[in-house]
Amino acid sequence: MIELALVGIGTGNPDHLTRQAMRTLAAADLVMIPRKGDDKADLAELRRTICAELLDDTKTQLAEFDLPVRDAATPDYRRRVDDWHDAIAAVWARTIAAHPGARRVALLVWGDPALYDSTLRIAARLQPAPRISVVPGITSIQALAAAHAIPLNEIGAPFVVTTGRRLRDEGWPAGVDTVVVMLDAGGAFEALDAQGVEIWWGAYVGMAEQITIAGPLAEVGPRILAARAEARARHGWVMDIYLLRRRGG
Amino acid sequence: MIELALVGIGTGNPDHLTRQAMRTLAAADLVMIPRKGDDKADLAELRRTICAELLDDTKTQLAEFDLPVRDAATPDYRRRVDDWHDAIAAVWARTIAAHPGARRVALLVWGDPALYDSTLRIAARLQPAPRISVVPGITSIQALAAAHAIPLNEIGAPFVVTTGRRLRDEGWPAGVDTVVVMLDAGGAFEALDAQGVEIWWGAYVGMAEQITIAGPLAEVGPRILAARAEARARHGWVMDIYLLRRRGG
Ligand SMILES: C[S@@+](CC[C@H](N)C(=O)[O-])C[C@H]1O[C@@H](n2cnc3c(N)ncnc32)[C@H](O)[C@@H]1O
Ligand SMILES: C[S@@+](CC[C@H](N)C(=O)[O-])C[C@H]1O[C@@H](n2cnc3c(N)ncnc32)[C@H](O)[C@@H]1O
Repeated sequence: MIELALVGIGTGNPDHLTRQAMRTLAAADLVMIPRKGDDKADLAELRRTICAELLDDTKTQLAEFDLPVRDAATPDYRRRVDDWHDAIAAVWARTIAAHPGARRVALLVWGDPALYDSTLRIAARLQPAPRISVVPGITSIQALAAAHAIPLNEIGAPFVVTTGRRLRDEGWPAGVDTVVVMLDAGGAFEALDAQGVEIWWGAYVGMAEQITIAGPLAEVGPRILAARAEARARHGWVMDIYLLRRRGG
Repeated sequence: MIELALVGIGTGNPDHLTRQAMRTLAAADLVMIPRKGDDKADLAELRRTICAELLDDTKTQLAEFDLPVRDAATPDYRRRVDDWHDAIAAVWARTIAAHPGARRVALLVWGDPALYDSTLRIAARLQPAPRISVVPGITSIQALAAAHAIPLNEIGAPFVVTTGRRLRDEGWPAGVDTVVVMLDAGGAFEALDAQGVEIWWGAYVGMAEQITIAGPLAEVGPRILAARAEARARHGWVMDIYLLRRRGG
């Protein structure tokens, strides 16, 4: 039976790796690395660096595979994602089959496999079912909080983690004064009433390219949008995340 | 100027330590370890083990200090916590002053310093202000998700992180189908309508003592309460966390 380890690697700082991640990778027979064509945002280079440093390549094989693309012709969003996950699972299955000696297989997952990541859902499609284990990794939420040296929650208070799309469509989530926003295609916070809201923003958090901006949303919002656009133009891609806090209601 | 590093150590598995945490501890002149009398839940032993393994003790000094207790006589909760944080800051200041050669000081923080932890708020009280840095660590949320091999969020959907007290007092949070509950003194989920709710529960997650139970809340709720009480009696302390998911609304 194949043992498939989904290994969280943190958000771009190779020092985010935990000892558990390092041990799991070192013990693997096969490590699979996704590649997205010329897209630098696939961060395959970082994965290669980590593997080169940790793996004894007389023992562990590395297999890069091309990530299938989503079929833009499929109109229904949910269906499009499902088909895409099926296609990725098929590529994994072929990659594993091409390495018949490999029993312990590992996949490097950005951040933590539990947070806005499809790896677990794709792994559940494999037939015959492998034994799946998860190694937690530092998330972008934590890298953001560390970069600003701020707590996520106020004392005893709840917080919501959500996406840019939700924030834009639904506004400030009910019942909380703290919101962490991920997967924002750009400036979803513009849809909010900025009055009384503070923002702690970060792009490339944990990485050498890290940029952070914090302050009253009304004041720093425009600066964040400019910094994001500029960074994106310079690097060819951008990943950002932010925490919003409003004065308690 | 004192450099104070707040180092997340994960939730009880020494292999949760990141390379960044290991490097920060190894570079420290002084590591401070809190002690809560005979209370095993202070987990000082784990901290000592980590330090013994990582520190070169010709270079790094270890200082254990007794954690002040909250003054139960102070009626106002917020005031009680504030006074307590003042008292802890004073003990840190004395401990640092007792090691005049120490410039790089580190504190080991359970999980991640950003999540339901007071270390940052206490550090902000120090005078003169040190330079504070944060090293993220694996949280109990991630250790729970990894133990069950589950994602925290449904695709593109938000989730709330809250406390047992809030869940008991306010019921299911508005606008989300997934709730992570921490700091529950025991069975706050009993206050919910269990219909259609699944629970993934874990005690001592990431540790050798780890216990996990998952299933429909109506069915496994009573089993969880029994397992929790039994574990608490056996070990003298318990820390647990759970994720609740209800069928989408
Ligand atoms: C598909 S999700 C993956 C999240 C990842 N599993 C984690 O644990 O952080 C991608 C989103 O995570 C956030 N993100 C991931 N890495 C980041 C980084 N280094 N800097 C800023 N945001 C990051 C961004 O919001 C991005 O849109
Ligand atoms: C004061 S908070 C500290 C949280 C910590 N900073 C973190 O990142 O997980 C303590 C709560 O965290 C959760 N917790 C921490 N460690 C845990 C563990 N090993 N197993 C289960 N729950 C844990 C419990 O809900 C507990 O009541």
